[in-house]
Amino acid sequence: MTDSKHAAKYKLTRGVTIWFTGLPSSGKSTIARNLERLLRQQEIKVELLDGDVIRTNLSRGLGFSKEDRDANIKRIGFVCHLLARNGVAAIVSAVSPYREARDSNRRLIGSFVEIYVRASVEKCQERDVKGLYQKAKDGLIKGFTGVDDPYEEPLDPDVVCDTERESPEESLVKVLNRLETLGYLSSEETAK
Amino acid sequence: MTDSKHAAKYKLTRGVTIWFTGLPSSGKSTIARNLERLLRQQEIKVELLDGDVIRTNLSRGLGFSKEDRDANIKRIGFVCHLLARNGVAAIVSAVSPYREARDSNRRLIGSFVEIYVRASVEKCQERDVKGLYQKAKDGLIKGFTGVDDPYEEPLDPDVVCDTERESPEESLVKVLNRLETLGYLSSEETAK
Repeated sequence: MTDSKHAAKYKLTRGVTIWFTGLPSSGKSTIARNLERLLRQQEIKVELLDGDVIRTNLSRGLGFSKEDRDANIKRIGFVCHLLARNGVAAIVSAVSPYREARDSNRRLIGSFVEIYVRASVEKCQERDVKGLYQKAKDGLIKGFTGVDDPYEEPLDPDVVCDTERESPEESLVKVLNRLETLGYLSSEETAK
Repeated sequence: MTDSKHAAKYKLTRGVTIWFTGLPSSGKSTIARNLERLLRQQEIKVELLDGDVIRTNLSRGLGFSKEDRDANIKRIGFVCHLLARNGVAAIVSAVSPYREARDSNRRLIGSFVEIYVRASVEKCQERDVKGLYQKAKDGLIKGFTGVDDPYEEPLDPDVVCDTERESPEESLVKVLNRLETLGYLSSEETAK
Protein backbone atom coordinates (compact mmCIF):
# COMPACT_ATOMS: atom_id res chain seq x y z
CA MET A 1 0.00 0.00 0.00
CA THR A 2 2.79 2.35 0.91
CA ASP A 3 4.59 1.60 -2.32
CA SER A 4 1.56 2.12 -4.50
CA LYS A 5 0.89 5.44 -2.76
CA HIS A 6 4.39 6.58 -3.47
CA ALA A 7 3.90 5.82 -7.11
CA ALA A 8 0.93 8.19 -7.14
CA LYS A 9 1.27 11.58 -8.79
CA TYR A 10 -0.32 14.19 -6.58
CA LYS A 11 -1.74 17.58 -7.40
CA LEU A 12 -2.73 20.20 -4.88
CA THR A 13 -6.24 21.38 -5.71
CA ARG A 14 -6.11 24.44 -3.44
CA GLY A 15 -4.07 25.99 -0.66
CA VAL A 16 -4.21 24.36 2.74
CA THR A 17 -2.66 24.52 6.18
CA ILE A 18 -1.55 21.16 7.55
CA TRP A 19 -1.01 21.58 11.26
CA PHE A 20 0.90 18.95 13.24
CA THR A 21 0.32 19.22 16.99
CA GLY A 22 1.56 17.00 19.80
CA LEU A 23 3.88 16.69 22.76
CA PRO A 24 7.59 17.42 22.39
CA SER A 25 9.28 14.31 20.95
CA SER A 26 5.96 12.87 19.77
CA GLY A 27 7.32 12.65 16.22
CA LYS A 28 5.65 15.68 14.58
CA SER A 29 8.68 17.01 12.75
CA THR A 30 9.63 13.66 11.24
CA ILE A 31 6.24 13.22 9.60
CA ALA A 32 6.03 16.90 8.64
CA ARG A 33 9.44 16.84 6.97
CA ASN A 34 8.62 13.65 5.08
CA LEU A 35 5.37 15.20 3.90
CA GLU A 36 7.17 18.36 2.80
CA ARG A 37 9.74 16.36 0.85
CA LEU A 38 7.11 14.22 -0.86
CA LEU A 39 4.96 17.18 -1.88
CA ARG A 40 7.98 19.09 -3.14
CA GLN A 41 9.02 16.12 -5.24
CA GLN A 42 5.61 16.35 -6.87
CA GLU A 43 6.25 20.01 -7.68
CA ILE A 44 3.59 21.17 -5.28
CA LYS A 45 4.11 24.57 -3.67
CA VAL A 46 4.92 23.83 -0.05
CA GLU A 47 6.40 25.60 2.97
CA LEU A 48 7.34 23.96 6.26
CA LEU A 49 7.20 26.12 9.36
CA ASP A 50 8.75 24.13 12.13
CA GLY A 51 9.88 25.15 15.57
CA ASP A 52 13.33 26.41 14.61
CA VAL A 53 12.17 28.39 11.59
CA ILE A 54 9.42 29.96 13.67
CA ARG A 55 11.56 30.89 16.67
CA THR A 56 14.23 32.43 14.45
CA ASN A 57 12.07 34.33 12.01
CA LEU A 58 8.73 35.08 13.61
CA SER A 59 8.78 34.71 17.34
CA ARG A 60 12.13 35.78 18.70
CA GLY A 61 11.55 37.33 22.08
CA LEU A 62 8.43 35.32 22.86
CA GLY A 63 8.67 32.97 25.83
CA PHE A 64 6.62 30.06 27.11
CA SER A 65 3.89 31.78 29.10
CA LYS A 66 0.36 31.00 27.95
CA GLU A 67 0.08 34.50 26.53
CA ASP A 68 3.32 34.23 24.58
CA ARG A 69 2.49 30.75 23.35
CA ASP A 70 -0.88 31.98 22.13
CA ALA A 71 0.75 34.96 20.39
CA ASN A 72 3.18 32.59 18.73
CA ILE A 73 0.46 30.25 17.44
CA LYS A 74 -1.63 33.17 16.17
CA ARG A 75 1.33 34.59 14.33
CA ILE A 76 2.07 31.27 12.66
CA GLY A 77 -1.62 31.05 11.79
CA PHE A 78 -1.51 34.47 10.13
CA VAL A 79 1.43 33.45 7.94
CA CYS A 80 -0.25 30.15 7.03
CA HIS A 81 -3.38 32.06 6.12
CA LEU A 82 -1.42 34.24 3.68
CA LEU A 83 0.24 31.20 2.15
CA ALA A 84 -2.82 28.96 1.96
CA ARG A 85 -5.01 31.56 0.31
CA ASN A 86 -2.35 31.90 -2.36
CA GLY A 87 -2.39 28.23 -3.23
CA VAL A 88 0.44 26.96 -1.03
CA ALA A 89 0.46 23.89 1.22
CA ALA A 90 1.66 25.39 4.51
CA ILE A 91 2.87 22.71 6.90
CA VAL A 92 3.33 23.53 10.57
CA SER A 93 5.04 21.43 13.19
CA ALA A 94 4.50 23.01 16.59
CA VAL A 95 3.61 21.64 20.04
CA SER A 96 0.70 24.15 20.09
CA PRO A 97 -0.66 22.76 23.35
CA TYR A 98 -3.76 24.94 23.69
CA ARG A 99 -6.93 23.86 21.96
CA GLU A 100 -8.44 27.32 21.67
CA ALA A 101 -5.38 28.72 19.88
CA ARG A 102 -5.48 25.89 17.32
CA ASP A 103 -9.23 26.23 16.85
CA SER A 104 -8.87 29.97 16.38
CA ASN A 105 -6.47 29.30 13.50
CA ARG A 106 -8.90 26.83 11.99
CA ARG A 107 -11.60 29.50 12.04
CA LEU A 108 -9.25 32.08 10.52
CA ILE A 109 -7.80 29.91 7.79
CA GLY A 110 -10.70 27.66 6.87
CA SER A 111 -8.63 25.21 4.82
CA PHE A 112 -7.09 23.70 7.92
CA VAL A 113 -6.18 20.08 8.55
CA GLU A 114 -5.28 19.18 12.11
CA ILE A 115 -2.98 16.23 12.60
CA TYR A 116 -2.65 15.00 16.14
CA VAL A 117 0.67 13.23 16.59
CA ARG A 118 0.03 11.08 19.62
CA ALA A 119 2.41 9.36 21.98
CA SER A 120 2.25 8.99 25.73
CA VAL A 121 4.20 11.42 27.90
CA GLU A 122 6.21 8.43 29.17
CA LYS A 123 7.23 7.46 25.64
CA CYS A 124 8.06 11.04 24.69
CA GLN A 125 10.18 11.43 27.84
CA GLU A 126 11.99 8.22 26.96
CA ARG A 127 12.73 9.50 23.43
CA ASP A 128 13.56 13.04 24.61
CA VAL A 129 15.02 13.95 21.22
CA LYS A 130 16.40 17.31 22.34
CA GLY A 131 17.07 16.49 26.00
CA LEU A 132 14.42 18.99 27.06
CA TYR A 133 12.31 16.67 29.24
CA GLN A 134 15.39 16.00 31.33
CA LYS A 135 16.06 19.71 31.67
CA ALA A 136 12.44 20.30 32.66
CA LYS A 137 12.62 17.52 35.27
CA ASP A 138 15.82 19.04 36.59
CA GLY A 139 13.99 22.34 36.93
CA LEU A 140 16.13 24.07 34.30
CA ILE A 141 13.10 24.79 32.09
CA LYS A 142 9.83 26.00 33.55
CA GLY A 143 6.42 25.52 31.95
CA PHE A 144 7.46 22.62 29.73
CA THR A 145 4.54 20.91 28.00
CA GLY A 146 4.04 17.40 29.36
CA VAL A 147 6.00 18.10 32.55
CA ASP A 148 4.61 21.20 34.24
CA ASP A 149 2.40 22.66 31.52
CA PRO A 150 -0.69 21.01 30.05
CA TYR A 151 -1.19 19.58 26.57
CA GLU A 152 -4.80 19.80 25.46
CA GLU A 153 -5.57 16.98 23.04
CA PRO A 154 -7.54 17.82 19.90
CA LEU A 155 -11.18 16.80 20.32
CA ASP A 156 -11.80 16.16 16.64
CA PRO A 157 -8.53 16.00 14.73
CA ASP A 158 -8.57 15.21 11.02
CA VAL A 159 -5.88 12.58 11.47
CA VAL A 160 -4.37 10.84 14.49
CA CYS A 161 -0.86 9.52 13.99
CA ASP A 162 -0.11 7.08 16.78
CA THR A 163 3.65 7.07 16.74
CA GLU A 164 3.94 4.38 19.39
CA ARG A 165 2.29 1.91 17.04
CA GLU A 166 2.90 3.26 13.54
CA SER A 167 6.06 3.82 11.56
CA PRO A 168 6.63 7.36 10.21
CA GLU A 169 5.93 5.90 6.80
CA GLU A 170 2.54 4.57 7.88
CA SER A 171 1.67 7.91 9.47
CA LEU A 172 2.58 9.72 6.27
CA VAL A 173 0.27 7.49 4.24
CA LYS A 174 -2.59 8.27 6.64
CA VAL A 175 -2.00 11.98 6.22
CA LEU A 176 -1.85 11.72 2.42
CA ASN A 177 -5.03 9.66 2.31
CA ARG A 178 -6.83 12.16 4.47
CA LEU A 179 -5.68 15.11 2.35
CA GLU A 180 -7.06 13.26 -0.63
CA THR A 181 -10.38 12.46 1.05
CA LEU A 182 -10.75 16.09 2.06
CA GLY A 183 -10.17 17.15 -1.54
CA TYR A 184 -6.87 19.00 -1.12
CA LEU A 185 -4.85 16.43 -3.02
CA SER A 186 -5.88 14.62 -6.15
CA SER A 187 -3.87 11.65 -7.32
CA GLU A 188 -3.41 9.68 -10.47
CA GLU A 189 -1.94 6.25 -10.04
CA THR A 190 1.02 5.88 -12.38
CA ALA A 191 2.46 2.70 -13.80
CA LYS A 192 5.56 1.67 -11.93
CA MET B 1 -0.71 57.64 -20.73
CA THR B 2 -2.38 56.80 -17.50
CA ASP B 3 -5.50 55.72 -19.28
CA SER B 4 -3.71 53.54 -21.77
CA LYS B 5 -1.80 51.89 -18.94
CA HIS B 6 -5.00 51.14 -17.14
CA ALA B 7 -6.32 49.44 -20.20
CA ALA B 8 -3.33 47.10 -20.15
CA LYS B 9 -3.81 43.53 -19.06
CA TYR B 10 -1.01 42.58 -16.71
CA LYS B 11 0.42 39.22 -15.83
CA LEU B 12 2.84 38.53 -13.04
CA THR B 13 5.75 36.55 -14.43
CA ARG B 14 7.15 35.56 -11.02
CA GLY B 15 6.84 36.35 -7.35
CA VAL B 16 8.21 39.65 -6.15
CA THR B 17 8.40 41.86 -3.08
CA ILE B 18 7.48 45.48 -3.71
CA TRP B 19 8.72 47.50 -0.78
CA PHE B 20 7.48 51.05 -0.19
CA THR B 21 9.70 53.00 2.19
CA GLY B 22 9.49 56.63 3.27
CA LEU B 23 8.71 59.03 6.07
CA PRO B 24 5.40 58.83 7.93
CA SER B 25 2.75 60.66 5.84
CA SER B 26 4.92 60.54 2.71
CA GLY B 27 2.11 58.78 0.85
CA LYS B 28 3.34 55.15 0.84
CA SER B 29 0.08 53.50 1.78
CA THR B 30 -1.97 55.35 -0.81
CA ILE B 31 0.20 54.17 -3.68
CA ALA B 32 0.58 50.69 -2.19
CA ARG B 33 -3.20 50.26 -1.81
CA ASN B 34 -3.82 51.47 -5.35
CA LEU B 35 -1.23 49.03 -6.63
CA GLU B 36 -2.78 46.20 -4.66
CA ARG B 37 -6.25 46.99 -6.02
CA LEU B 38 -5.04 47.20 -9.60
CA LEU B 39 -3.10 43.92 -9.46
CA ARG B 40 -6.00 42.15 -7.78
CA GLN B 41 -8.36 43.37 -10.51
CA GLN B 42 -6.03 41.67 -12.97
CA GLU B 43 -6.36 38.44 -11.01
CA ILE B 44 -2.74 38.55 -9.90
CA LYS B 45 -1.94 36.95 -6.55
CA VAL B 46 -1.17 39.84 -4.25
CA GLU B 47 -0.84 40.54 -0.52
CA LEU B 48 -0.47 43.94 1.08
CA LEU B 49 1.37 44.10 4.38
CA ASP B 50 0.91 47.58 5.70
CA GLY B 51 1.62 49.04 9.09
CA ASP B 52 -1.63 48.03 10.76
CA VAL B 53 -1.63 44.47 9.44
CA ILE B 54 1.96 44.06 10.53
CA ARG B 55 1.58 45.50 14.02
CA THR B 56 -1.51 43.39 14.69
CA ASN B 57 -0.39 40.09 13.26
CA LEU B 58 3.38 39.94 13.28
CA SER B 59 4.95 42.47 15.54
CA ARG B 60 2.78 43.01 18.57
CA GLY B 61 5.06 43.75 21.49
CA LEU B 62 7.82 45.28 19.39
CA GLY B 63 8.55 48.95 20.05
CA PHE B 64 10.45 51.65 18.22
CA SER B 65 14.02 51.08 19.38
CA LYS B 66 16.48 50.43 16.56
CA GLU B 67 16.67 46.80 17.61
CA ASP B 68 12.90 46.36 17.60
CA ARG B 69 12.51 48.19 14.32
CA ASP B 70 15.13 45.96 12.75
CA ALA B 71 13.42 42.85 14.12
CA ASN B 72 10.13 44.08 12.68
CA ILE B 73 11.58 44.69 9.21
CA LYS B 74 13.34 41.31 9.20
CA ARG B 75 10.13 39.57 10.16
CA ILE B 76 8.20 41.27 7.38
CA GLY B 77 11.02 40.31 5.04
CA PHE B 78 10.74 36.67 6.05
CA VAL B 79 7.01 36.62 5.29
CA CYS B 80 7.56 38.36 1.95
CA HIS B 81 10.23 35.82 1.13
CA LEU B 82 7.77 32.97 1.69
CA LEU B 83 5.12 34.68 -0.43
CA ALA B 84 7.37 35.82 -3.27
CA ARG B 85 9.00 32.44 -3.75
CA ASN B 86 5.52 30.99 -4.13
CA GLY B 87 4.57 33.32 -6.95
CA VAL B 88 2.85 36.10 -5.01
CA ALA B 89 3.33 39.86 -5.36
CA ALA B 90 3.98 40.87 -1.75
CA ILE B 91 3.53 44.60 -1.24
CA VAL B 92 4.91 46.24 1.89
CA SER B 93 4.22 49.73 3.11
CA ALA B 94 6.46 50.48 6.07
CA VAL B 95 8.55 53.47 7.13
CA SER B 96 11.55 51.08 7.40
CA PRO B 97 13.96 53.92 8.10
CA TYR B 98 17.21 51.94 8.26
CA ARG B 99 19.04 51.22 5.04
CA GLU B 100 20.83 48.10 6.26
CA ALA B 101 17.56 46.42 7.29
CA ARG B 102 16.04 47.07 3.86
CA ASP B 103 19.19 45.91 2.07
CA SER B 104 19.28 42.78 4.18
CA ASN B 105 15.78 41.94 2.94
CA ARG B 106 16.84 42.56 -0.63
CA ARG B 107 19.68 40.07 -0.19
CA LEU B 108 17.36 37.53 1.42
CA ILE B 109 14.51 37.79 -1.06
CA GLY B 110 16.29 38.54 -4.32
CA SER B 111 13.16 39.54 -6.22
CA PHE B 112 12.94 42.84 -4.40
CA VAL B 113 11.81 46.18 -5.77
CA GLU B 114 12.46 49.19 -3.56
CA ILE B 115 10.16 52.16 -3.99
CA TYR B 116 11.25 55.31 -2.25
CA VAL B 117 8.24 57.49 -1.53
CA ARG B 118 9.79 60.89 -1.11
CA ALA B 119 8.46 64.05 0.47
CA SER B 120 10.21 66.58 2.67
CA VAL B 121 9.86 66.30 6.42
CA GLU B 122 8.14 69.70 6.36
CA LYS B 123 5.53 68.51 3.90
CA CYS B 124 4.95 65.27 5.82
CA GLN B 125 4.55 67.20 9.06
CA GLU B 126 2.05 69.45 7.35
CA ARG B 127 0.03 66.45 6.13
CA ASP B 128 0.40 64.55 9.41
CA VAL B 129 -2.25 62.02 8.38
CA LYS B 130 -2.40 60.28 11.76
CA GLY B 131 -1.50 63.24 13.98
CA LEU B 132 1.72 61.51 15.01
CA TYR B 133 4.16 64.28 14.10
CA GLN B 134 2.29 66.57 16.46
CA LYS B 135 2.45 63.98 19.22
CA ALA B 136 6.17 63.55 18.63
CA LYS B 137 6.73 67.32 18.75
CA ASP B 138 4.73 67.43 21.97
CA GLY B 139 7.04 64.78 23.38
CA LEU B 140 4.28 62.17 23.63
CA ILE B 141 6.07 59.79 21.25
CA LYS B 142 9.81 59.21 21.48
CA GLY B 143 12.01 58.08 18.61
CA PHE B 144 9.63 59.17 15.87
CA THR B 145 11.15 59.01 12.39
CA GLY B 146 11.62 62.47 10.96
CA VAL B 147 11.44 64.16 14.35
CA ASP B 148 13.92 62.56 16.72
CA ASP B 149 14.88 59.42 14.81
CA PRO B 150 16.69 59.33 11.46
CA TYR B 151 15.35 58.26 8.08
CA GLU B 152 18.07 56.84 5.86
CA GLU B 153 17.20 57.46 2.22
CA PRO B 154 17.69 54.60 -0.23
CA LEU B 155 20.92 55.06 -2.18
CA ASP B 156 19.72 53.24 -5.29
CA PRO B 157 15.96 52.73 -5.19
CA ASP B 158 14.22 51.10 -8.14
CA VAL B 159 11.61 53.85 -8.24
CA VAL B 160 11.35 57.26 -6.61
CA CYS B 161 7.82 58.57 -6.17
CA ASP B 162 7.99 62.26 -5.46
CA THR B 163 4.66 62.85 -3.82
CA GLU B 164 5.14 66.60 -3.55
CA ARG B 165 5.13 66.84 -7.33
CA GLU B 166 3.27 63.76 -8.57
CA SER B 167 -0.31 62.63 -8.14
CA PRO B 168 -0.82 59.16 -6.63
CA GLU B 169 -1.97 58.11 -10.10
CA GLU B 170 1.29 59.27 -11.69
CA SER B 171 3.31 57.49 -9.01
CA LEU B 172 1.38 54.29 -9.63
CA VAL B 173 2.16 54.42 -13.34
CA LYS B 174 5.88 54.83 -12.56
CA VAL B 175 5.77 51.76 -10.34
CA LEU B 176 3.92 49.69 -12.93
CA ASN B 177 6.32 50.71 -15.67
CA ARG B 178 9.29 49.79 -13.54
CA LEU B 179 7.83 46.40 -12.64
CA GLU B 180 7.41 45.81 -16.35
CA THR B 181 10.95 46.92 -17.20
CA LEU B 182 12.31 44.64 -14.50
CA GLY B 183 10.37 41.75 -15.99
CA TYR B 184 7.95 41.08 -13.11
CA LEU B 185 4.91 42.25 -15.03
CA SER B 186 4.15 41.60 -18.65
CA SER B 187 1.38 43.52 -20.32
CA GLU B 188 -0.74 43.25 -23.39
CA GLU B 189 -2.39 46.42 -24.53
CA THR B 190 -6.09 45.79 -25.00
CA ALA B 191 -8.50 47.67 -27.21
CA LYS B 192 -10.54 50.14 -25.21
